[in-house]
Amino acid sequence: MIYMDNAATSWPKPDCVYNGVTNCMKKYAANPGRSGHGMSLQAARIILYAREMLCKLFNVNDPFRMIFTANATESLNLAIKGILKPGDHVITTRMEHNSVIRPIVELQKQAITSTFINADRKGGIDPQDIKKAINARTKLIVTTHASNVTGTILPAQDIGKIAHDHGITYLLDAAQTAGSIPMDFSTLGIDLAAIPGHKSLLGPQGTGILYIAPGIDLKQLKEGGTGSNSESLTQPEFCPDKFESGTLNTPGIAGLAVAIRYILYETQSKLNAHVKKLETHFLGEISNLPEITVYGHIGQHLRAGAISINIKDRDSSEIAEILDTEHKIAVRGGLHCAPLAHLSIGTQRQGTVRFSFGIFNTIDEIDTCIGALKRIVRD
Amino acid sequence: MIYMDNAATSWPKPDCVYNGVTNCMKKYAANPGRSGHGMSLQAARIILYAREMLCKLFNVNDPFRMIFTANATESLNLAIKGILKPGDHVITTRMEHNSVIRPIVELQKQAITSTFINADRKGGIDPQDIKKAINARTKLIVTTHASNVTGTILPAQDIGKIAHDHGITYLLDAAQTAGSIPMDFSTLGIDLAAIPGHKSLLGPQGTGILYIAPGIDLKQLKEGGTGSNSESLTQPEFCPDKFESGTLNTPGIAGLAVAIRYILYETQSKLNAHVKKLETHFLGEISNLPEITVYGHIGQHLRAGAISINIKDRDSSEIAEILDTEHKIAVRGGLHCAPLAHLSIGTQRQGTVRFSFGIFNTIDEIDTCIGALKRIVRD
Repeated sequence: MIYMDNAATSWPKPDCVYNGVTNCMKKYAANPGRSGHGMSLQAARIILYAREMLCKLFNVNDPFRMIFTANATESLNLAIKGILKPGDHVITTRMEHNSVIRPIVELQKQAITSTFINADRKGGIDPQDIKKAINARTKLIVTTHASNVTGTILPAQDIGKIAHDHGITYLLDAAQTAGSIPMDFSTLGIDLAAIPGHKSLLGPQGTGILYIAPGIDLKQLKEGGTGSNSESLTQPEFCPDKFESGTLNTPGIAGLAVAIRYILYETQSKLNAHVKKLETHFLGEISNLPEITVYGHIGQHLRAGAISINIKDRDSSEIAEILDTEHKIAVRGGLHCAPLAHLSIGTQRQGTVRFSFGIFNTIDEIDTCIGALKRIVRD
Repeated sequence: MIYMDNAATSWPKPDCVYNGVTNCMKKYAANPGRSGHGMSLQAARIILYAREMLCKLFNVNDPFRMIFTANATESLNLAIKGILKPGDHVITTRMEHNSVIRPIVELQKQAITSTFINADRKGGIDPQDIKKAINARTKLIVTTHASNVTGTILPAQDIGKIAHDHGITYLLDAAQTAGSIPMDFSTLGIDLAAIPGHKSLLGPQGTGILYIAPGIDLKQLKEGGTGSNSESLTQPEFCPDKFESGTLNTPGIAGLAVAIRYILYETQSKLNAHVKKLETHFLGEISNLPEITVYGHIGQHLRAGAISINIKDRDSSEIAEILDTEHKIAVRGGLHCAPLAHLSIGTQRQGTVRFSFGIFNTIDEIDTCIGALKRIVRD
């Protein structure tokens, strides 16, 4: 089986990740931060180590600003609901995933207004449109870093600058880029970043991160036992405890820690260059086929990750199924939980066939894939 | 190392759990419910299988009423905040964990009032006190099934009956009992149950469950991609999707599925009898030592799980540290994230030394433990 669904979750993981999870479960998966015995302390150490690895990757000083969540969706909910209060205004784009759209639409019930910035046909967003949408009540700007449908990269740094020039908080949804596109949080000008552990960070599912910049004040989404201030009936006010109630996913986080160590050791630029080589080869071949529509930009500097295509007007789910059953190629068809992005690029009915390559895909696999598409086109 | 901190998280797990997690990660950890390819469907199948195993263990018909969360704390937050609206009243007890207390205290800011029922010195709660506290605005009763400090079992069935006689929803915090005390949700009369996957259910950390009985209407805590109704800007209204946004912890849930299969195969009664035998032996020996105070009930029918003790007026954390460093016995000292329970039994300053045995502890280990306590008492 050729796995090309890495935008949903990366697979396979480096062997060290499997070993990291198993080793933790078998040897020291006590409850971190709860008890004082050796195994509990060892569990707490791997959690801290994972925060430190994240800091190293994203150039952040304080490991306690890296909050563990269940997934990037929880990170986004925590950030959006933690910042916005009744009467506030939020700006986002039509290229967002439902993990951004749905919380914002839900908040409309609480008198929080929103503006969804239009995208062009390639999924691009003009930062000036964001600037124009700012009003006196705008508290938050949320954008994805790269579309999960078209792979279009949004100009995060420019958007961050606009936000800060107006004293507005900027939340970046890094679901499609964290781990693949090198990011320096200290210069990127973001205040909050939602990060999945299980995509390009190569960690196991069940891990997500919210980065909270110093000075950003956020309400928590959940309260509960934190192992700290145990005598208090209210949630502690300090990071990370304020946002991490209940037992963490210690084995998952242990796997994430070694996954990031793997990325740092192999270097992000090398891993990213490999994936870009695969994408360039793939795009070069298929964009010559007149029956195939490629969405988003073809040029590499404007795109990351997901490559969405269609074959004439054929149903995208049907193409995905043929690829799966006849060619053993796993891709995602249909709509990709980003309904306004599909409207923007005109695929709300057809959906798209989405290919997303990972660091373990090979040129041979891409060639198999190109061959399969040519055969589907021909038949 | 002798691990006696199973009330925090069970360890070790049965070998099949390690294998279940690893096998999932290596062979089929695609994103469940998102794509249509074979690996994604296989991931979705193990999630459904885990729901079915839960249904079998708790005698529930509909697997889609078993919602996966990050931990029992999230389950409690989802249930409490999903039910209560401004103006409502909630009844709970002073034996609760901070995972119940802190969300309720937080909700006081939203004009939700609460009554905390007093416990006796052994941690017992009189259901009649709950009945007396009901008023016209009482919407929810939340109680733990067994105290994580004293192990005292609360009369869940009686409390459930009182709740239903008054048309009030009953939420059971089964953190200390799910997997160890056999429970039939269809006869127990509970509407919502918060369940950790990683304690007596023997699954990995990073797994929690909220059981939602048919007819119980709950608001979600988070919105996002669910893989369903992908074209819609609002959260789906059906179970489990309404409550499960973002990528699930597939490997963790795969481990949980085989953990419950293990419990069903070995039978809960056999596993529980083994732990009870250990507890009876331990309690029998240490309750004869005049220097040791045992909290809660000694008799087995009134207690489950945690056994809290103190040695004269010595600091509980210090005793836990001696047990760890000098005797290689892992227990928890101090306060156990249940401040009102400590007040109820009079240990708010001293905390308690908490022993919690698991299915893999042996009589020999208990004897080592008793020997260590005798030596600490003597020295």
